[in-house]
Amino acid sequence: MKVDVIFTAGAIDRAELAGRTAVVFDVLRATSTIVTALANGCRAVVPVVDVEAARRTAEELAAAGDAGGGVLLGGERGGARLPGFPHGNSPLEYGPEVAADKILVLTTTNGTRAIHGALPAAEIYAGSLLNARAAAAAALAAGRDVALICAGTQERFSLEDTAAAGFVLAEMFALAEETAPDRPGGEKKGGTRPEPTDAAVAALHLAAAYRRNPLQIMYDSRHGQKLLRLGQAADLVHCAQLNALPVLPVYRDGRLVRAR
Amino acid sequence: MKVDVIFTAGAIDRAELAGRTAVVFDVLRATSTIVTALANGCRAVVPVVDVEAARRTAEELAAAGDAGGGVLLGGERGGARLPGFPHGNSPLEYGPEVAADKILVLTTTNGTRAIHGALPAAEIYAGSLLNARAAAAAALAAGRDVALICAGTQERFSLEDTAAAGFVLAEMFALAEETAPDRPGGEKKGGTRPEPTDAAVAALHLAAAYRRNPLQIMYDSRHGQKLLRLGQAADLVHCAQLNALPVLPVYRDGRLVRAR
Repeated sequence: MKVDVIFTAGAIDRAELAGRTAVVFDVLRATSTIVTALANGCRAVVPVVDVEAARRTAEELAAAGDAGGGVLLGGERGGARLPGFPHGNSPLEYGPEVAADKILVLTTTNGTRAIHGALPAAEIYAGSLLNARAAAAAALAAGRDVALICAGTQERFSLEDTAAAGFVLAEMFALAEETAPDRPGGEKKGGTRPEPTDAAVAALHLAAAYRRNPLQIMYDSRHGQKLLRLGQAADLVHCAQLNALPVLPVYRDGRLVRAR
Repeated sequence: MKVDVIFTAGAIDRAELAGRTAVVFDVLRATSTIVTALANGCRAVVPVVDVEAARRTAEELAAAGDAGGGVLLGGERGGARLPGFPHGNSPLEYGPEVAADKILVLTTTNGTRAIHGALPAAEIYAGSLLNARAAAAAALAAGRDVALICAGTQERFSLEDTAAAGFVLAEMFALAEETAPDRPGGEKKGGTRPEPTDAAVAALHLAAAYRRNPLQIMYDSRHGQKLLRLGQAADLVHCAQLNALPVLPVYRDGRLVRAR
């Protein structure tokens, strides 16, 4: 299977995405927040591009009464909580006491846009450092060509998103190796060995460079530095926990829910 | 000084380039060929985007009689020599016996386009692995913000161009360190320390990954693999020689000539 890395939401070629498995990364912080909220019992995350639409969606879901434990409205622009929004985009805001049984309506600067950009794909997952192995296993099992889509930061290449894509690809190689048919006693479960594009090879090298200290990715990145200035150091530490959460958000009918 | 890496010719933001130093990379093979031809005594290389315009330019230069030892017409599309062109795009075609005192008119798939895309910059150099240190020294000495522009391969990220940009940036850091004012006996010749964007940080890591074996870049890259299939293995070996040629092509009045 071919594996490509797309560096920004704006660089998505929608026609090329058709029939592929897409994994979307906005490590600081949208997809890390989605993974964390679902891991903490949140029923679903509804990603909304537009701020007013997010507000409306939250109201409608609350009025419809099918939201179980209730609706959370969260979001940010430029890294800061939106005026009038009860919640922001920090994964640490969505602990079990807040997230359990709720539906979270979330709008963010780059991440929700990237998820919507991925819609032509056959399947869409949310990836992060937290769930790199879970995303890799699903992408490999699907057997389709894979697009690892980085949200990027303001239409620019983002170090943390690309490194996360590299970690997922590294896990795919490791899993493909484990399940390779020529391994004695091994069984081929995971489709073919990944064939990386040049961009994917570069992402692999980036992940290798940071494997021993993933937190350094966050300090080396422009968006990480911005969040530090905004007092969000704890978010960086949380989002850098490689393979800490075996949770895979999958996009179904406008919502991200836990994959089986 | 800020240092950015732009991954494809198509991604150049012309307004943003204004006032910057640009170094253009098409490692396989346009900029490696330009560096090699100038190192072997070629007087100038005229990069032309369009095939017919290249033919015409070569005829006009020959007719004008100011071409010294004569005019060479070289170029490729899709890695293969153009029909009717006496020369291709292999650096090995431009040894001293061929290149000395000539003017080379060159048209290539990606490289000449990237050079033309860089025109809004204050200064344009051609970079490659061959002359990474020479390019770094000039970019640092200029003191302006720097755009390291990768030609890319068919509008896609190219491993070898980005790695070469990373090698130039690594040399810039090394030179900035050597000439830092706080070093005992040191003198500040090279402007300020480079401040890399996220894309530039990624390029640095890529260069570090291949520092001990730059040839592997060529084997790992899609375009390198294509050239291997076309029987051009010797070109890969030539283009992978890090800092082998202390020659810096600079763009002046439509031509690339050796910088002072």
